[in-house]
Amino acid sequence: MAFDALTVRDRPIADAAVAQLFTEARTRNAWSDRPVAEDLLRRLYDLTKFGPTAVNATPARFLFLTSPEAKARLAPFMADANREKTLQAPVNVIIGHDLAFADTLPVLFPHAPGAKDWFADPAAARETAFRNASLQGGYFLLAARALGLDVGPMSGFDAEGVKAEFFAGTTVEPNFIVNLGYGTDENLFPRSPRLSFEDAAKIL
Amino acid sequence: MAFDALTVRDRPIADAAVAQLFTEARTRNAWSDRPVAEDLLRRLYDLTKFGPTAVNATPARFLFLTSPEAKARLAPFMADANREKTLQAPVNVIIGHDLAFADTLPVLFPHAPGAKDWFADPAAARETAFRNASLQGGYFLLAARALGLDVGPMSGFDAEGVKAEFFAGTTVEPNFIVNLGYGTDENLFPRSPRLSFEDAAKIL
Repeated sequence: MAFDALTVRDRPIADAAVAQLFTEARTRNAWSDRPVAEDLLRRLYDLTKFGPTAVNATPARFLFLTSPEAKARLAPFMADANREKTLQAPVNVIIGHDLAFADTLPVLFPHAPGAKDWFADPAAARETAFRNASLQGGYFLLAARALGLDVGPMSGFDAEGVKAEFFAGTTVEPNFIVNLGYGTDENLFPRSPRLSFEDAAKIL
Repeated sequence: MAFDALTVRDRPIADAAVAQLFTEARTRNAWSDRPVAEDLLRRLYDLTKFGPTAVNATPARFLFLTSPEAKARLAPFMADANREKTLQAPVNVIIGHDLAFADTLPVLFPHAPGAKDWFADPAAARETAFRNASLQGGYFLLAARALGLDVGPMSGFDAEGVKAEFFAGTTVEPNFIVNLGYGTDENLFPRSPRLSFEDAAKIL
């Protein structure tokens, strides 16, 4: 279906959807035991993948840990404050970035055959991978909420340990980790303050 | 209004909203002359700010260039392929990250009075600022679409030049730049391929 047949693009989405995605959504620190079906993880990827990235590089890689065995491999590397909730969540997602993403550009960015060579410098490749996989992390978190899931993103883990345990011998490096499932209100922080427009933005 | 009074959180948002945010949305390369009111820019910030970040640091800073004078200051630093569309878009947004974000943590993360000290190492502060401002960049792009705007994000610009022109003497560094407004179909790329689930993800 053509987009314009489905909706008019210049209208805001419904208030309830804005609340679910942004204004009323909360990072969850405790999880119900309701499982997340594999179909839903695939649907989540299929939304995330459409978010824009530089030269369509989509450098993020997603490791969905759903089995008790896989989750037990991750737990020792989590910061103490993050371990219990990570074990409780039905799914842990390790979001990484592939430093060798340029190898995919002949397929992903076909109209610029030389694009692969733009990232020959490892520092430039790393910066592009990190920025764009983090952008994709943002898409992933909001796509999960769009699908009715809750998220709990975390940076508190031993990145070298996670690299060695899950990405040894590959060009993928861990970026951050997300608990995924259906959250409860247990251990919910009060909503913390945000910077005012004037403190974070300016119109010139 | 309490969230649960507004909607049930575990249901997907409407198909039309999913299309507007993800599956049918496109990066725009040409722009109508329809302006974007300041109120809408403030609303956009007010959605973006709620996205989760590590220790609620929200390190992204947003410079909205709307005047011909401000846009003319940016144009010389854009890559040749990005200059014309950047001048055409009604708003250019420079998204930066504040390397001194830790100074805001006593306000933004009040329940952990020592949080400021966790980022005393400049390399750790830089990594946290870059990752989380990029995450916020993802929230920003989807929030814009949620409000009916189109986006055109770009990394192709002279970052040192933009730093010197817009952030001299501050702790803010440019991350990426977004054209914002109401796009047209002119110069629209065909939708490029995406990696399959099997190529980008794994379930363990």
